[in-house]
Amino acid sequence: MNLSELIRKNRSYRRFHETERISGSQLEKWIGLARFTPSGRNMQPLKYAGSVSPELNAEIFPNLGWAGYLSDWNGPSEGERPAAYIIVLHDKSISENRYCDDGIAVQSILLGAVEDGYGGCIIGSVNKAKVSRILKLPDHLEILWVLALGKPAEQVVIEDLKDNNVKYWRDMNQVHHVPKRKLDELIYQITL
Amino acid sequence: MNLSELIRKNRSYRRFHETERISGSQLEKWIGLARFTPSGRNMQPLKYAGSVSPELNAEIFPNLGWAGYLSDWNGPSEGERPAAYIIVLHDKSISENRYCDDGIAVQSILLGAVEDGYGGCIIGSVNKAKVSRILKLPDHLEILWVLALGKPAEQVVIEDLKDNNVKYWRDMNQVHHVPKRKLDELIYQITL
Repeated sequence: MNLSELIRKNRSYRRFHETERISGSQLEKWIGLARFTPSGRNMQPLKYAGSVSPELNAEIFPNLGWAGYLSDWNGPSEGERPAAYIIVLHDKSISENRYCDDGIAVQSILLGAVEDGYGGCIIGSVNKAKVSRILKLPDHLEILWVLALGKPAEQVVIEDLKDNNVKYWRDMNQVHHVPKRKLDELIYQITL
Repeated sequence: MNLSELIRKNRSYRRFHETERISGSQLEKWIGLARFTPSGRNMQPLKYAGSVSPELNAEIFPNLGWAGYLSDWNGPSEGERPAAYIIVLHDKSISENRYCDDGIAVQSILLGAVEDGYGGCIIGSVNKAKVSRILKLPDHLEILWVLALGKPAEQVVIEDLKDNNVKYWRDMNQVHHVPKRKLDELIYQITL
């Protein structure tokens, strides 16, 4: 798969084949990709916690918000839940400013998962206090994002955004549609 | 190249073969990768300006800070300067919050450039007011990052970080060394 194919295949998947487990070494491999990414002032203030444990996953799950625009859906039901989580942490004892390191890292991790036949979703709606307690995180490690990971069990399609409506939606066949702005809307100008 | 190779090859390059030009359609292709990336609440508030014009590049260049830790180096000399720039913009008329969209986008763009045999550097030290005037940007488009792009003319190597010293350095042969934290320092815990 070239990069363009990989990026297109990396959709926000929220339903998984929960019985398809992920190993700790797979999480390490994907986090290892983030190790080689650019970091503002090379401070490298991001740390990572991971879980492939069904018990710990079950504790984390109720503290996550799923797909804000799908108001009649409370998240994946049992059997379709993530097989693993990576919790992206900001180590405040290293640096207050994380620049854009977190986006760089999460994209790299997700592309790694997709290349290996998995996929995931960046979750920002997190009960951070509760997840911190569950993971027994020290105070200097602040939760930024939770990556939910698994073997995708849903189809996600991109469509051109219309009428400035950014809301993704599901059709009758449970296909998830994501409107994206056209390229000419994203490019303000290119000077030749 | 698989993703791991691509990510390792994507170093922060700051010296280029300036005569190796980049075309407008190459910039469009790389920005096109960002179009297919995840966006917080799918708002997609990022916009892009680009320059492959030697004249405009020359106007942009003096407003950029280069490699803060190399205190005796003022940036690339003529002949080694970037062939192109992509200026990553936040359209405040769409959304105040950009979540981690910018890191996701810049990593995707840089990986695209590397896959095509180019490379670049994320510059955060930017005289934003001046670059905004040069590009005649409207008030609602705020400059986040300037990506300097070109055909790399320097060797960058990764080494294990020691004594918590994050400063990159150049050796006698002008090889650029970047210390990175070891994986076991990045991983707080993985629960099996």
